Amino acid sequence: MGFKRKLREAVALNNSLLCVGLDPDPELMPAGLSIAQFNREIIDATKDLVCAYKPNLAFFEAEGIEGLRALEETRSYIPSHIPVIGDAKRGDIGNTANKYAYALFESFGFDAATVNPYLGLDSVAPFFNYCDKGVFLLCRTSNPSARDFQDLVVDGQPLYEHVAMKAIEWNLYGNIGLVVGATYPEELSRLRELCPTMPFLIPGIGHQGGDLPEVVRRGTDKFGMQAVINSSRAVLYASAGSDFAAAARSIATISRDEINIYRPSMTEPGVE
Amino acid sequence: MGFKRKLREAVALNNSLLCVGLDPDPELMPAGLSIAQFNREIIDATKDLVCAYKPNLAFFEAEGIEGLRALEETRSYIPSHIPVIGDAKRGDIGNTANKYAYALFESFGFDAATVNPYLGLDSVAPFFNYCDKGVFLLCRTSNPSARDFQDLVVDGQPLYEHVAMKAIEWNLYGNIGLVVGATYPEELSRLRELCPTMPFLIPGIGHQGGDLPEVVRRGTDKFGMQAVINSSRAVLYASAGSDFAAAARSIATISRDEINIYRPSMTEPGVE
Repeated sequence: MGFKRKLREAVALNNSLLCVGLDPDPELMPAGLSIAQFNREIIDATKDLVCAYKPNLAFFEAEGIEGLRALEETRSYIPSHIPVIGDAKRGDIGNTANKYAYALFESFGFDAATVNPYLGLDSVAPFFNYCDKGVFLLCRTSNPSARDFQDLVVDGQPLYEHVAMKAIEWNLYGNIGLVVGATYPEELSRLRELCPTMPFLIPGIGHQGGDLPEVVRRGTDKFGMQAVINSSRAVLYASAGSDFAAAARSIATISRDEINIYRPSMTEPGVE
Repeated sequence: MGFKRKLREAVALNNSLLCVGLDPDPELMPAGLSIAQFNREIIDATKDLVCAYKPNLAFFEAEGIEGLRALEETRSYIPSHIPVIGDAKRGDIGNTANKYAYALFESFGFDAATVNPYLGLDSVAPFFNYCDKGVFLLCRTSNPSARDFQDLVVDGQPLYEHVAMKAIEWNLYGNIGLVVGATYPEELSRLRELCPTMPFLIPGIGHQGGDLPEVVRRGTDKFGMQAVINSSRAVLYASAGSDFAAAARSIATISRDEINIYRPSMTEPGVE
């Protein structure tokens, strides 16, 4: 099943736009647990509350080969009806991009991936060409230094809007989305205006401080859909003790429900 | 030993600015060889001809856990006096960038790495903070689509020049370099003018078609130094047969010697 449909069905089944980011950090995890064990408990505690999981590859790569093995275990432990977004932010020239796309979509079997646009179309097309996979292009990121380059003005518009316009132009298979940080509400509104129907992956609520009601109002489409709202640290490390999974469930429940309060309630017409 | 000094000593020892890119592709390698075996033979055949090796992580990641194990084996097989540049082009928000920097510099033990600037300073500072490591910031890449965003004009200058100017501003520890494609000679000249002493990692000769004499004249500093000129496919796949290592040696010798013909001959004053 293609990413978009799988996402839509998971959103409906769990009545949720919440994505839980899997950033397993041994320094923050309860002592004595392996990364794979930690992730399994987080998944068991939240799998009826989320529309997607987003493993962040850096946290696995930092643990070397063992970390990559934990990533494979985690990937296969996630129930098959929940889409998995490989957060890798890759970007390289064409023949290398082919290999990264293969690694993420075939070797790890992710349903979607994040990619960096700086190298232009031929660096991201190998990802787009997997028509059934989702590809989230970094557009306006959630970090403070996002301004350094993304806000530079080209022909009267910031660079990130040029990225969004290219995303529209490149979206031949309808599988492109954007990464838009929750921490910049005005930019989020502007991008939703430019791309009214495109899926947005929105990190930056919770620990990073994005204002949830504003994020939901500005980031969803007019049906209250097409936003994948990610929380990592606030869920994973809600408790540092042995009750971490129950605490994660509690925070994930609160986040999901709070998101739903602010989703537009217009009924969506039958699709797909 | 820090990257810059290690690089300088390898350049002097092997009288070479040539970097061999390790992009092991099972479809192009002689049948029956593992990635680690192939890389070992390439390294044995070229280790007296290069100033650095540059493993391209995509080619290892595409082979899953086995590929990563081959990367570790390859890394430890490279003689310790030759610097190794992990070509990973990572870029993510601060706490994630910390993990990527750790993965590349500590877990894999690379002497240098390539990073993507799109997310701004806080996404690359965790790399810069490893003062003894080299960090090559993507500036003007070698691929045809580099134009899509890198050439967009901001305040009268293309985006890639803004990246170069930030690299100068951010270079507190003197460990920043730029990735500048061999396929764009005018941009290479302009960047060398802006950054007269910064190390440039220059991919794009050989298979990608960069003009070697122009690349050397424009890309080196006034002493004929500070350019790491990368060739991957032209060396690795010089022959598809069992003589691949000898063929790689032959092409690497020709490339090194041709580069040296065009290096400025001004004697460098004593340094470090």
